[in-house]
Amino acid sequence: MAMWGGRFGSGTDKDMQDFSESISFDKRLYKYDIQGSKAHAAMLAAQGIIPQTTAQKIIEGLEIVQKNIESGDFTFCAELEDIHMHIEKALTEAIGEDGARVHTARSRNDQVALDIRLYLRDEISLISNMIRDFQRAMLSQCEANPETIMPGFTHLQHAQPVLFAHHLLAYIEMFERDLGRLADCRKRLNLMPLGSGAIAGTTLPVNRETVCKLLNFDGITQNSMDAVADRDFAIELVAALAVFAMHVSRLSEDLILWCSQEFDFIEFDDAFTTGSSLMPQKKNPDVAELSRGKTARIYGDLTALLTLCKGLPLTYNRDLQEDKEPLFDAIDTVIKILKVYPPMIASMKIHPQRMLEAASDPSLMATDLADELVKLGMPFRTAHHRVGSLVKWCHDHGKGLNRLTLEEMRITIPEALDFFLELFDPAVSIAKREITGATGFKTVRSRIDYWLETLE
Amino acid sequence: MAMWGGRFGSGTDKDMQDFSESISFDKRLYKYDIQGSKAHAAMLAAQGIIPQTTAQKIIEGLEIVQKNIESGDFTFCAELEDIHMHIEKALTEAIGEDGARVHTARSRNDQVALDIRLYLRDEISLISNMIRDFQRAMLSQCEANPETIMPGFTHLQHAQPVLFAHHLLAYIEMFERDLGRLADCRKRLNLMPLGSGAIAGTTLPVNRETVCKLLNFDGITQNSMDAVADRDFAIELVAALAVFAMHVSRLSEDLILWCSQEFDFIEFDDAFTTGSSLMPQKKNPDVAELSRGKTARIYGDLTALLTLCKGLPLTYNRDLQEDKEPLFDAIDTVIKILKVYPPMIASMKIHPQRMLEAASDPSLMATDLADELVKLGMPFRTAHHRVGSLVKWCHDHGKGLNRLTLEEMRITIPEALDFFLELFDPAVSIAKREITGATGFKTVRSRIDYWLETLE
Amino acid sequence: MAMWGGRFGSGTDKDMQDFSESISFDKRLYKYDIQGSKAHAAMLAAQGIIPQTTAQKIIEGLEIVQKNIESGDFTFCAELEDIHMHIEKALTEAIGEDGARVHTARSRNDQVALDIRLYLRDEISLISNMIRDFQRAMLSQCEANPETIMPGFTHLQHAQPVLFAHHLLAYIEMFERDLGRLADCRKRLNLMPLGSGAIAGTTLPVNRETVCKLLNFDGITQNSMDAVADRDFAIELVAALAVFAMHVSRLSEDLILWCSQEFDFIEFDDAFTTGSSLMPQKKNPDVAELSRGKTARIYGDLTALLTLCKGLPLTYNRDLQEDKEPLFDAIDTVIKILKVYPPMIASMKIHPQRMLEAASDPSLMATDLADELVKLGMPFRTAHHRVGSLVKWCHDHGKGLNRLTLEEMRITIPEALDFFLELFDPAVSIAKREITGATGFKTVRSRIDYWLETLE
Amino acid sequence: MAMWGGRFGSGTDKDMQDFSESISFDKRLYKYDIQGSKAHAAMLAAQGIIPQTTAQKIIEGLEIVQKNIESGDFTFCAELEDIHMHIEKALTEAIGEDGARVHTARSRNDQVALDIRLYLRDEISLISNMIRDFQRAMLSQCEANPETIMPGFTHLQHAQPVLFAHHLLAYIEMFERDLGRLADCRKRLNLMPLGSGAIAGTTLPVNRETVCKLLNFDGITQNSMDAVADRDFAIELVAALAVFAMHVSRLSEDLILWCSQEFDFIEFDDAFTTGSSLMPQKKNPDVAELSRGKTARIYGDLTALLTLCKGLPLTYNRDLQEDKEPLFDAIDTVIKILKVYPPMIASMKIHPQRMLEAASDPSLMATDLADELVKLGMPFRTAHHRVGSLVKWCHDHGKGLNRLTLEEMRITIPEALDFFLELFDPAVSIAKREITGATGFKTVRSRIDYWLETLE
Repeated sequence: MAMWGGRFGSGTDKDMQDFSESISFDKRLYKYDIQGSKAHAAMLAAQGIIPQTTAQKIIEGLEIVQKNIESGDFTFCAELEDIHMHIEKALTEAIGEDGARVHTARSRNDQVALDIRLYLRDEISLISNMIRDFQRAMLSQCEANPETIMPGFTHLQHAQPVLFAHHLLAYIEMFERDLGRLADCRKRLNLMPLGSGAIAGTTLPVNRETVCKLLNFDGITQNSMDAVADRDFAIELVAALAVFAMHVSRLSEDLILWCSQEFDFIEFDDAFTTGSSLMPQKKNPDVAELSRGKTARIYGDLTALLTLCKGLPLTYNRDLQEDKEPLFDAIDTVIKILKVYPPMIASMKIHPQRMLEAASDPSLMATDLADELVKLGMPFRTAHHRVGSLVKWCHDHGKGLNRLTLEEMRITIPEALDFFLELFDPAVSIAKREITGATGFKTVRSRIDYWLETLE
Repeated sequence: MAMWGGRFGSGTDKDMQDFSESISFDKRLYKYDIQGSKAHAAMLAAQGIIPQTTAQKIIEGLEIVQKNIESGDFTFCAELEDIHMHIEKALTEAIGEDGARVHTARSRNDQVALDIRLYLRDEISLISNMIRDFQRAMLSQCEANPETIMPGFTHLQHAQPVLFAHHLLAYIEMFERDLGRLADCRKRLNLMPLGSGAIAGTTLPVNRETVCKLLNFDGITQNSMDAVADRDFAIELVAALAVFAMHVSRLSEDLILWCSQEFDFIEFDDAFTTGSSLMPQKKNPDVAELSRGKTARIYGDLTALLTLCKGLPLTYNRDLQEDKEPLFDAIDTVIKILKVYPPMIASMKIHPQRMLEAASDPSLMATDLADELVKLGMPFRTAHHRVGSLVKWCHDHGKGLNRLTLEEMRITIPEALDFFLELFDPAVSIAKREITGATGFKTVRSRIDYWLETLE
Repeated sequence: MAMWGGRFGSGTDKDMQDFSESISFDKRLYKYDIQGSKAHAAMLAAQGIIPQTTAQKIIEGLEIVQKNIESGDFTFCAELEDIHMHIEKALTEAIGEDGARVHTARSRNDQVALDIRLYLRDEISLISNMIRDFQRAMLSQCEANPETIMPGFTHLQHAQPVLFAHHLLAYIEMFERDLGRLADCRKRLNLMPLGSGAIAGTTLPVNRETVCKLLNFDGITQNSMDAVADRDFAIELVAALAVFAMHVSRLSEDLILWCSQEFDFIEFDDAFTTGSSLMPQKKNPDVAELSRGKTARIYGDLTALLTLCKGLPLTYNRDLQEDKEPLFDAIDTVIKILKVYPPMIASMKIHPQRMLEAASDPSLMATDLADELVKLGMPFRTAHHRVGSLVKWCHDHGKGLNRLTLEEMRITIPEALDFFLELFDPAVSIAKREITGATGFKTVRSRIDYWLETLE
Repeated sequence: MAMWGGRFGSGTDKDMQDFSESISFDKRLYKYDIQGSKAHAAMLAAQGIIPQTTAQKIIEGLEIVQKNIESGDFTFCAELEDIHMHIEKALTEAIGEDGARVHTARSRNDQVALDIRLYLRDEISLISNMIRDFQRAMLSQCEANPETIMPGFTHLQHAQPVLFAHHLLAYIEMFERDLGRLADCRKRLNLMPLGSGAIAGTTLPVNRETVCKLLNFDGITQNSMDAVADRDFAIELVAALAVFAMHVSRLSEDLILWCSQEFDFIEFDDAFTTGSSLMPQKKNPDVAELSRGKTARIYGDLTALLTLCKGLPLTYNRDLQEDKEPLFDAIDTVIKILKVYPPMIASMKIHPQRMLEAASDPSLMATDLADELVKLGMPFRTAHHRVGSLVKWCHDHGKGLNRLTLEEMRITIPEALDFFLELFDPAVSIAKREITGATGFKTVRSRIDYWLETLE
């Protein structure tokens, strides 16, 4: 191994520590680790496994440790590997040998499973509240612009007129389903894993239900190997966040288009753009662009988590330490987006005149004409064909649909009635769409009211 | 453009058709397309939009079309693009001009949204039933081997003895959560989208609630733009299937290890392996390997779906046609796995003697000794340290933990009691783990009973 | 196991065959399998391992089999698993027992490694030629519109005027790098693996160099375990295709924007769009949308392949059978895109007037004014600041930059010279950018000429 | 907007800064930013765009800034957004107004394109050197154990005996291709982008070739829009790193298996494992597990980068700021792995006796017997069938293949010769595989020698 000699050796321990430590990212779990240890100590005492006085000392000691961490008076170091070891060591320094009793009937395997569930419960609540705020910001724009008309797009081509509020309400619906996914995920992970030990449970007479109640879980996990080995709840959460981010990326695309010079439908408040003193027209929609970009990163986190868990034998494998960074990154990224997006939406300026102008192209109302023919009893495909001929006639004669006389219309559509001439106003088109879910003025108003009440 | 001349032109239409057609994969939706059209026609008549007799003819015509498709007496072709056009055309051929009325107050955008939801409802039910069968197959092995002891692994290293049934039960728990995810997804997608039209709803006096009831949905969608634009339910489903596949990949890894010559814990029935007439020991665990491999493909499907939807402006964009193949592939792949895995599990042979042998290494029971010291009042970290010293003594004196005399044990652990010598039997270790979720004989038996009742 | 009884058993063999067969997708390799077997037989004879007459019979037999397959006179069935078994069986049926000698000194493990490399070599050549055609189509538009001016975008906001040809040339550069990646991949996979056997090589006196020469490889693989176990070349290829697709997705986004009513920069030929007889303005950019969507699927294929190979122990594992479908799908998808995209580009109509109009906003030329100040010796940041003040002045006085008098300009920029007033013409702006890589008329012309020569 | 009132407003600026800053991660580019600015300033002076004395001051000022950063005497803050602004501001503080001239004829768009290419060139060199060291570590084990025999696995089942060195050499070949991919990527990115400006090039008379030579690039980029918009080189690099990580994950799986109690083929040095004072047998293969896990994260980075770039219109979009973190993470992760893996390999202990024992199962040599029959002229399929019958006979008579008498062998194989009885020794099997790429003693020895020379 002479070949080798000089290359390795010194410095290895340091490299190995850097390679395997998790404290640099799992320290954020400190609060949950302490919360869990307090409940565990209380239970150990209640079961007579440790004396009440010891439990009391442990709990007080843990509170001191927490204060020290929160005041910044705490040193993290790679040698102590992870947050569990840091806190146990600090506890023992604070209260002496009794600190060594906190890890009774527990392993780091079930301890981290507990911490992460406590942490995720909190983050899901926070994110859910923030999504509610996002819905409120969207709704504030609906309220401010309940009757603003814009072109609805399919294939990024003008399709039919819709209410701007209807477009925004579509996202409120999507976010509502996102909230549902978060709630379902929370329900599934809200089970107490402590007592699973390293893999097989413990031989000590613990009471898992006590810990469950103290920590306000819905129940306890039912298989120790499952409890220490599986991370499906983390994947489920990141998948739900990925779908939410996908929704945000679509809204972002809409907004980026709308604030282009070509669309000119909206304008962002300066606080949420970067500009250029040279090019005054330039207000880059940075929040929307970055949010669209950050969606990619959450997808990457999901890919990482799924790939990580594939093909691992039961139970715990060290690979699973890599579950935290993608999980934390997805959560942090979503929270960052949720901090800036709602105020940006709330402060965004609308150009209703430009929107209406774009929506006034009469060809957007051609379907409405076909519908009128259907109401007269004509089969839909026939009506569709007739209107097509009319459109061709207009094109050949260089005349807009909205400029036709009744006589001209009757050349291809003999059935045409007087009021057909008035169909080519986008407001008329909107006004006729009053079934549930459609873009009619009343329907949309009523949905705005529904959400006002719901989001109160 | 002389440069170009010869290269393009002829054959282009054919290439374009091949590029944009979807009939080659969406034809599987025929049943749901017909089911939806029947309900739609019934509603149109009930609302007076088309005559009752027409609706009747349409419904009968659709039944003929369905029979033709199912008997193979139906031609699919790329020119007719998709399943909707195929069926409408066949209907018109069957019943004449009245067929042209079925598409009244409907667009392909809301029609496909309906079809896919009807389809997914069915597939989710099928897959859920098959996962139940998978649980039953696992349970049959638990029942047959309720007290078989094996080594539990962490880091693929021997950790503590566990029951083989406990190991399998871990997967039954995982599958139960997979079922929960499927049910939640079904709940979210089980809303009726018809009436959303192309984007804005319809101007005709449809009754969406009627269609909802006829098709047995839980309710109707509340925003037409959301209904035609979003595919979050498809992503949610594929994410749930990906997590299920991840669970299967872990079981597969376990099984592949267990049937290696080195482990030799199990043996598959010949029907589920490929062998070699040359190498008799060779029974390749093909089902497990292929299932592990197919997990990757489902992950790929999820990546495709998420990526597809990112950054699309509202509402429908043609990109969304690409949602179907990954969705179908994920579903088909899971169904294929679910067809072969349960019978393979049910017919697998166990080598309990080999498992017990592997579990009998006394060092697997070292934690139990520490627990006994804790029960005597020793702080856990101290107990842990003492046992460490004992292990070192054994190592230095070339003596197994299970071969010690009480005197020898007392050299490092003066507190040792008589019965400590008997701790190194894996059955003793198992017997002491009788808290909920642990691997104790009674606990596992009771969980088997629970599942027997649940899965009946 | 009573619970089980009725569920499994019958039909299992069929399910198992369906689960594990590969013939449904690997049959496309038939040509390469035959090509490889012919070379292998010739070598076996040259080495005296089989008689020359036998080799001759095998080669003739394989040619018959190939003809039968190509004429459709060949039955594929799941029982015979894969293409190798199909061909060997057909060969034996064609020439009798001598067919049984073709598999001498060979295993399916090295055989499939050979087939796939032969196949990929061909596909890489095909795709490379098609990308060249794509470049030619782009170039034909550059040639037809060498001086058309459009706004260049950053953040989808107007930035500076650029030549339309310069924009298209950017993609020609990207595709050139894509071609480089394909060539590098081809170089790495163009090594002959036969002789690796199942895992360890063969004991028969084969001559691998002979086969290498007959099949026109660059060399032979150097480690039998590596040769049968690794699929890095497939991943490398799909990664290169994914990057190419990413480039196409960006071009697609550009085109989708440009043909929106709001931009109105281009118009596709009817052959490459879908329209609506109702809405004449509606020409959906389906090819661009579908290509953008199909990019997602290629990403999914890459995810699948990478995930598949992760963590597999050496050497061959059955999981690797799953390498083919994502690989084939990525290749097929790229070829489909390459069939329709070039003619669509070549036949697309440009609206130069609309582009110029959009590029004529004087604020697009503000940077040019700052540059002129720098040429007079002013530090850049100062110049940038001065122009900013001028822009503000214009804004406050409701006057466009291109409408200023020299006196007005001198209020904030005393150094202003006469010709500064002429800076706000986009053609002037373009004309001044004549360094390599920039958008100047001559520079772009010269790059067009370079590509005309290169792509001839 | 009353609904909104209390929620937003204060703190927004801070959130927006946190959301959009990049300094927290792009500060690592400082060295390259300074290097690029020095070359740029020198060129500006050489072209007469700025005075020589100014350039000199700028260069000296940049050296001071670099020293300050490297000594820790530098404050990074979110308000200054990115590394470019930090350095320009520090420069101006150091040398006064002349600092404001460094950004002449440059934009942050081409500046960051330059910095990232300079950075990647360095990282590719570093990683390539470290992979060479990894190959050397593998080779040191080959050299130390050139004739150690182990079972070769397919499907994780015993297949044929191979040399342990042959198994390791397979990875050396894979790493060699990884190096090739890195070199190809470096070649493609080693082009100088400065002068591309924001999007369109610059109007100032810069000399791009001068900068190219000063910074030792292979050439200059040929299209300004391509240069500021594309990140294909970053994706290509991360794809290459992903394939390398995939290779490492497979080696990791091998090692994790080998150090299990069931395989017991190797033992890691304590420095690279974590153990347990309770369970002495427990030496968890943490490095291998974590490396396998970290592979998932690199896949996630690749997914993020590909997804990020999909569907972005030209040219620069703010989304692209998100390219850096996944790129840096993939690079850092690979470097971390490369720091610990080689010394772990070099210090790993082999159990040759256990390996040989496992390889001595006579059925591993059954193929060799068939090969001998082929050498006598028997068609392979016949030989294969005959050996199958013999194996069955052995099984029925409870006799190992290696325990047969010649008479017994001749019952099913009348052609059997004396020396056939000696075929069932794994060393004999190895000795007969001496074609290029096979596992023969001499072939492997010669490949070890080849690599010794190559890696010197």
